[in-house]
Amino acid sequence: MTITADQVRQLREMTGAGMMECKKALSETGGDLNKAIDALRKAGIAKAEKRAGRSASQGRVEAYVHDSRIGVLIEVNCETDFVARTDDFRLLCKDLAMQVAAAGAEYVRREEVPAERISHEREIYTEQVKNEGKPAQIVDKIVDGKLNKFFAEVCLMEQAFIKDDKRTVGDLVKEVSSKTGENVVVRRFARFRLGSD
Amino acid sequence: MTITADQVRQLREMTGAGMMECKKALSETGGDLNKAIDALRKAGIAKAEKRAGRSASQGRVEAYVHDSRIGVLIEVNCETDFVARTDDFRLLCKDLAMQVAAAGAEYVRREEVPAERISHEREIYTEQVKNEGKPAQIVDKIVDGKLNKFFAEVCLMEQAFIKDDKRTVGDLVKEVSSKTGENVVVRRFARFRLGSD
Repeated sequence: MTITADQVRQLREMTGAGMMECKKALSETGGDLNKAIDALRKAGIAKAEKRAGRSASQGRVEAYVHDSRIGVLIEVNCETDFVARTDDFRLLCKDLAMQVAAAGAEYVRREEVPAERISHEREIYTEQVKNEGKPAQIVDKIVDGKLNKFFAEVCLMEQAFIKDDKRTVGDLVKEVSSKTGENVVVRRFARFRLGSD
Repeated sequence: MTITADQVRQLREMTGAGMMECKKALSETGGDLNKAIDALRKAGIAKAEKRAGRSASQGRVEAYVHDSRIGVLIEVNCETDFVARTDDFRLLCKDLAMQVAAAGAEYVRREEVPAERISHEREIYTEQVKNEGKPAQIVDKIVDGKLNKFFAEVCLMEQAFIKDDKRTVGDLVKEVSSKTGENVVVRRFARFRLGSD
């Protein structure tokens, strides 16, 4: 098991422990960072540390609150702090926060919708379409169409943009991405409606 | 199975379906509201509805963003809209949002800390204290003390208030509660740090 200088540096940053102690902890735990942290803490060398991610993403955290009743917090990532400070990127973040407040997305993208929820929707649409007496060979096609409509309601990236419903939010993000020349990604959002789940 | 007028009214509000349809759906599903919604949707009577809670809580949703890098969204509940609009309550919400941004709580109260995390911390403290050579009969007591310190770091209600560290955040909330004469409860918060988990 070779312990790299990078691993040691990372463990030192996360624990404040000395270089030799970090190297030893990593050797003993087969290079597992989390186990090494635990070992250092057990030995009383590292202080209890908040679990903090260390990804190098740049971007902005933006908030929007409507009438103290609907609030949105959103994180949008780009590649450099320079782009994060441009007007284009700032405006995008503001627009996205307002979009979530107004149109109430539940997920960023369809990959995040839980499988059980999709199968539950699919079941309901299938019954609906059968009850309408549609021929069996087109039921699946209609159900797929209804599912796509569902995704376009609950997934931010597929929603129509509230300031211009000819574009989706995904289109908007792509435009800012090509304008700034950087990858632009909506990382996460939270939306609280007063008194609601 | 008796279906109450209240159940019918609630189902009507949630689906937009007619009174007789709602009554029928509730009868057929034994009064189960969620199943009745599904039945109405399958029959094509109710539109796909966003899942929205209907609790009657009042209060405020407040946001605070520091330097576009740390953002907090928080919901604080009280009993009436009147109290929600008072200066005392507004100031409390602002202070709480800033507290979460600055002191980085992870939970509102200790009941929300997952059991596995607590046992993980307990294990580490126990090893720590044993390694320090403390006598076995006082190990548990020291470990309990360390756990309480851990809760005071990660639970908002147990943290020292950043504007006056002689009081906890819980004390502050209680003071506003007795001043306004209403139950005041921090319901939930979200905290995003740019590039972090």
